[in-house]
Amino acid sequence: MDNRPIGFFDSGIGGLTSIPYIMRQLPAERIVFFGDTARTPYGSKSPQTIRQFTLQIGEFMAKKGVKMMVVACNTISATSLDELQAAYPDIPVIGVIAPTAKVVARDVPPESHIGILATKATIRSGAYVSKILEHDPSRQHIYSTACPAFVPLIEEGIIDNQIMDLTIHYYLDRFVEEHQIDTFVLGCTHYPLIADNLRRIYPDIRLISSSKEVATAVNIELSRRHMYAGPHNQEKDNVFYASDLSENFVNMIQRILGRDQDELNIRFKNLDL
Amino acid sequence: MDNRPIGFFDSGIGGLTSIPYIMRQLPAERIVFFGDTARTPYGSKSPQTIRQFTLQIGEFMAKKGVKMMVVACNTISATSLDELQAAYPDIPVIGVIAPTAKVVARDVPPESHIGILATKATIRSGAYVSKILEHDPSRQHIYSTACPAFVPLIEEGIIDNQIMDLTIHYYLDRFVEEHQIDTFVLGCTHYPLIADNLRRIYPDIRLISSSKEVATAVNIELSRRHMYAGPHNQEKDNVFYASDLSENFVNMIQRILGRDQDELNIRFKNLDL
Repeated sequence: MDNRPIGFFDSGIGGLTSIPYIMRQLPAERIVFFGDTARTPYGSKSPQTIRQFTLQIGEFMAKKGVKMMVVACNTISATSLDELQAAYPDIPVIGVIAPTAKVVARDVPPESHIGILATKATIRSGAYVSKILEHDPSRQHIYSTACPAFVPLIEEGIIDNQIMDLTIHYYLDRFVEEHQIDTFVLGCTHYPLIADNLRRIYPDIRLISSSKEVATAVNIELSRRHMYAGPHNQEKDNVFYASDLSENFVNMIQRILGRDQDELNIRFKNLDL
Repeated sequence: MDNRPIGFFDSGIGGLTSIPYIMRQLPAERIVFFGDTARTPYGSKSPQTIRQFTLQIGEFMAKKGVKMMVVACNTISATSLDELQAAYPDIPVIGVIAPTAKVVARDVPPESHIGILATKATIRSGAYVSKILEHDPSRQHIYSTACPAFVPLIEEGIIDNQIMDLTIHYYLDRFVEEHQIDTFVLGCTHYPLIADNLRRIYPDIRLISSSKEVATAVNIELSRRHMYAGPHNQEKDNVFYASDLSENFVNMIQRILGRDQDELNIRFKNLDL
């Protein structure tokens, strides 16, 4: 039994999309979330910059006494997971890409044409393709494409409208047609926020979400290490930190978690100083 | 005569749009530019965060020995100019808003319906309206609207296509119609990069650009203080720093300055460490 909190972090608000899955699967766990809203988006930044920001967040999480670090961000998972694990050898570090790739290799039919959608940094790393092939080297049809404008538009709350739809067509129509894609891997934790748009525009394409798979991976890892929290742990102790308490952050956290601001423990934390 | 460089800075790449005006008006001046591409965009962040980032940039500029700091960013000008001037009392600090507001008050016909387009932080500050009214208290028709998605789309290079046009319609059609706008003030140094889109969509609306007006203000201030550089100063000494050397930064600097990367002195500078 281990009542220390689990640390979740993201480059912005995207990682929040994994929180409802955790709350449902593991209601006794206490969560400390950190979103780097002051420096979001990470996906078009260089790997060196992303690594430096990641280690700052890791330090904050370690100070908060977390029992596990969950990198609920594909861009960080693709670029900085090894560095983070090396810096904190005693804390298990879970990324989103390995568990999602495993599910893809296991559950998506072998002849499927898989389209990985992610940020530039994630695509550039090749992490999804190599992890999927690790589990199933026989896969012939894995394609990738970067969609860099999705994250800033989502962070601005531009979701339920024609601009987002047009941006989806802009990035994906040709990609889907050219490669006869039948499965999208949402390789960015922001993308579940546009899952409805994707389903409407491409009703025949299967969606696999890294936000959901990371929650399952956390569950498995807690079980394997006998680190579940005891039943007296209270959900209301969850704390949501952001490096900038913008309107966007507060709006999105309410939207994703379906609660009012006064029911949530939202705090400001500046990592630069 | 003063051959020290002029320090220009911005939250990202927008401030670069003022550089061609400076090069044309003041070819002998040497420029040190800093774009905070690692933490862009600023416009939806809180004033406290913007102030902290601004003072870090100010410190970097002071270390570079600049003779003048030019805040080529409306968001910083609207939120942090006083703090910056207080921190560096011996260095003149020029923002974009005051000179642009002066030109608006002087050159735009009194009965015009003026629409200020800017980021959330700039609009929230009310700086444009109050500065214009300072110069011309009789103005009756000044309206403001925030366009938060413009900057991230521009930073992603999404300019010459339908997504940007649709985003412009989304933010501005109703605003223009409701207030019978005949003049746009581009109250963000990124917006000159979509001036062609705006001209095409609203051919009858006059555009006033803060990127151009700040160059004129620099010229006047150098003259007033007898701080012009001597004629032997060479343009090739200009240095362009960015906190993240993303593809976007390199592409946009080439686009804005019309030169190849190897003709430009582009350097990485991390302010966080």
